[in-house]
Amino acid sequence: MYSVREVAEKIGAEIAGDESIELKGLAGVEEAGPGDLAFIANKKYLCFLETTRASAVIAASGTTSDKVTLLLHPDPYFAFMKAVMLFHPQKTYAPSLHPSAVIADSATVHETAHVGPNVVIDEGVAVGKGSAVLANTFLGEGTTVGDDCLIYPNVTLRERSLVGDRVIIHSGTVVGSDGFGYATSEGKHHKILQVGRVVIEDDVEIGANVTIDRATLGETRIGRGTKIDNLVQVAHNVRIGEGCIIVSQVGISGSTKLGKYVVLGGQVGLVGHIELGDGVQVGAQSGVARGVEAGKTVFGSPARDISRTMKIEACLRKLPEHIKLLRELDKKLSGPSSDDD
Amino acid sequence: MYSVREVAEKIGAEIAGDESIELKGLAGVEEAGPGDLAFIANKKYLCFLETTRASAVIAASGTTSDKVTLLLHPDPYFAFMKAVMLFHPQKTYAPSLHPSAVIADSATVHETAHVGPNVVIDEGVAVGKGSAVLANTFLGEGTTVGDDCLIYPNVTLRERSLVGDRVIIHSGTVVGSDGFGYATSEGKHHKILQVGRVVIEDDVEIGANVTIDRATLGETRIGRGTKIDNLVQVAHNVRIGEGCIIVSQVGISGSTKLGKYVVLGGQVGLVGHIELGDGVQVGAQSGVARGVEAGKTVFGSPARDISRTMKIEACLRKLPEHIKLLRELDKKLSGPSSDDD
Amino acid sequence: MYSVREVAEKIGAEIAGDESIELKGLAGVEEAGPGDLAFIANKKYLCFLETTRASAVIAASGTTSDKVTLLLHPDPYFAFMKAVMLFHPQKTYAPSLHPSAVIADSATVHETAHVGPNVVIDEGVAVGKGSAVLANTFLGEGTTVGDDCLIYPNVTLRERSLVGDRVIIHSGTVVGSDGFGYATSEGKHHKILQVGRVVIEDDVEIGANVTIDRATLGETRIGRGTKIDNLVQVAHNVRIGEGCIIVSQVGISGSTKLGKYVVLGGQVGLVGHIELGDGVQVGAQSGVARGVEAGKTVFGSPARDISRTMKIEACLRKLPEHIKLLRELDKKLSGPSSDDD
Repeated sequence: MYSVREVAEKIGAEIAGDESIELKGLAGVEEAGPGDLAFIANKKYLCFLETTRASAVIAASGTTSDKVTLLLHPDPYFAFMKAVMLFHPQKTYAPSLHPSAVIADSATVHETAHVGPNVVIDEGVAVGKGSAVLANTFLGEGTTVGDDCLIYPNVTLRERSLVGDRVIIHSGTVVGSDGFGYATSEGKHHKILQVGRVVIEDDVEIGANVTIDRATLGETRIGRGTKIDNLVQVAHNVRIGEGCIIVSQVGISGSTKLGKYVVLGGQVGLVGHIELGDGVQVGAQSGVARGVEAGKTVFGSPARDISRTMKIEACLRKLPEHIKLLRELDKKLSGPSSDDD
Repeated sequence: MYSVREVAEKIGAEIAGDESIELKGLAGVEEAGPGDLAFIANKKYLCFLETTRASAVIAASGTTSDKVTLLLHPDPYFAFMKAVMLFHPQKTYAPSLHPSAVIADSATVHETAHVGPNVVIDEGVAVGKGSAVLANTFLGEGTTVGDDCLIYPNVTLRERSLVGDRVIIHSGTVVGSDGFGYATSEGKHHKILQVGRVVIEDDVEIGANVTIDRATLGETRIGRGTKIDNLVQVAHNVRIGEGCIIVSQVGISGSTKLGKYVVLGGQVGLVGHIELGDGVQVGAQSGVARGVEAGKTVFGSPARDISRTMKIEACLRKLPEHIKLLRELDKKLSGPSSDDD
Repeated sequence: MYSVREVAEKIGAEIAGDESIELKGLAGVEEAGPGDLAFIANKKYLCFLETTRASAVIAASGTTSDKVTLLLHPDPYFAFMKAVMLFHPQKTYAPSLHPSAVIADSATVHETAHVGPNVVIDEGVAVGKGSAVLANTFLGEGTTVGDDCLIYPNVTLRERSLVGDRVIIHSGTVVGSDGFGYATSEGKHHKILQVGRVVIEDDVEIGANVTIDRATLGETRIGRGTKIDNLVQVAHNVRIGEGCIIVSQVGISGSTKLGKYVVLGGQVGLVGHIELGDGVQVGAQSGVARGVEAGKTVFGSPARDISRTMKIEACLRKLPEHIKLLRELDKKLSGPSSDDD
């Protein structure tokens, strides 16, 4: 339980409304009740200011309401992020090695790390200070996990993966599986041994059931601060820059490079051996077959500059009427068309 | 071994043909041999009535054959479902706690439940009567699994997940992973703690390697009787109504709501914060960027009313010829076009 | 450390350049330094011959360079495959049963097999000679794994799966999960028990987090030598022929059949109950709704013959200009159009 003033101070917001209320927790603006703090980061939901039963709502500076106390912040989502941390302190994992964990003699697990039940830690692995490796996870030979990492249950990190500090990896994710490479000769696909590794830099978060293949030679690399959603495929030798956002079910083919702060929408596919410059944004379900210059936003399958795709799309939407007009013109000019269908 | 009369009675079918035969098992209509019962639910396969070596075939009422005995039912797939249960009684799991399972002191596992090898059950978990939790599965702190559930090997249910009765969850699936939410400020993506949970109502079935993220606040909810295929992504705060069918590799973005009996074809993508009304059907690979009213069928990327998409598609199919005609008209009217390419 | 002559002999290449050099390892052409052997299989990278610091480069016969020693081979990727095997002998797993593995009494594990920590092997399982089953993997009742297989950590093979020889299955993959089949009657989706199995023939490799559903009746079958990338969905009763290449995130719906040497690009979706003939190739992100004759290459959603798709695409690219021309023609003929938007 916090006073609205305490909350405002902690999250850096201004109060507009009743300054005397007490807040007991957070809730969605539609579900909230008395004592709850809600938030509106998306304008689409501003209408709920009229009907919410929340005691206070975090909203963008400039928002007004005569129904509910507002906590105003220029970046309401950022203020909300702080409010969640205030009301829900993050779970911590006490230093401990569960007796059922199987830890190789040559592995070094920092004394402040937490290793859960049935975890398997192979030869030569290093786990840094304050890191938690949860139930049933496998760390392959020579893998390094840095400090303050959180590896959820049922994760697989194959041999020689290198994971930085403060990395979060969700359940079911596989890091370091073999890249998909075969030399086909006389009807037989001969496996190319995949002898490179995966490097995951600091502050990366990787969702559930993601697959990140090891490099054929050298490295597959995920840049510092990049966030990857669930069920994403990252092929061998891909290099992802810093601060990228990769939404669910994206597929990135081998050797493709992403600059910094690239954003890929859900279900996007990138072919191999191309480069997307810094700040490129790709709309959901797009198929990108060529490199994209820094700063561009592309969309569609095949992906084009988004304004061009929108223009084509506007024509497509009316294509039956356009074709009808075309036939009428043809009839006027030449008599009945022979292009019947 | 059952007589065709016994089978007909148990599955509620009428016999057309030889009533004296004995049936020893089920087989596909193409692979079946003497003594086998086959089925045809899809008209496309009716031709196999001529060639099948099965002793009897379940088919839709009104079907005729002078080659093979038919078991006629108005809904042959439903009759087939019953026949499978007759010939293949469902596997049961004896009450037992495998000695290798790691079960927290505060967890309550019903005495009739089955807990397989290397299962990890965290503090405060409850597992209901008759439920089976198979090898290497993880149930996080405070998770509740109802009665008569079947949780296959290598599943992860993160903390505070609430699973109803008669729920089936296939291997590799992750329930309750963190939603994908960051507040970006000064080039840093700050993680929004995801403190909600996932609720899975009664009679839901979830395929293999599915990911269902916990809510930021509140709940991600899968409605009663909904069936989800493999490799589907359900983002945070999504609400899926009763009786929906979600085919493989679908992605549903955050906060989107599905009504009852919605059907999503394979690889469909839905953007976040939209609503699909009861009974909406979405064709495979569609991209849905706006809400859809109850009862509509949409298709395409972007998804439109299916008849409109089909009309546009019919024009597209002949687009090169249409454009050729356009150029000819242009030539007639204005001399050689300047729009060469 | 090998002399360039030794390497040339082992990989069957001709030396063009300095025959006296020693090679200590392999590296990518961009990252390589002195003592490294690099390779160029893709013409796109030939430009790096000018700048690479490698001591030698494997390249296609006919390539020339005055900067670096070349190892020339008609199929440079094949020669590279051999070079990787030369410099990086494949990891082997010593015969052993880890004491933490849970192995049913009726299972038969060959004395030369390797079973890792926390592996669970159910009743009636057979594991053949020289096979390795790594940490936390589950082999269900009656499953057979042939000789010289490699099953990575956290894999699930459900009951009665039949795996041939020299099969590789990567982490997180689920083989034999139930097919997605329900008979819907009076608003309830009744589960069709899935009582068939999965058969994986010799020399198949299956990537990470793949799902292959068991057949309703009979078999789901993956043909000899077929290679499947990560996150692919193979539905019940699918039959894949020999030597196919299935790239990441493909979805194949129920009962569809692939001939031999079919290639499916990334994120392709196939509807159920169709047949793709031998040698069919399908471009990335295509949606295939009809059968395809042997030898054809199709592309697009809906998939068409690739040359037709390219022709349509060329028209689409200029559609706004075509429509503008159409309106101008209309204006000339009839005065201002009534089709404003």
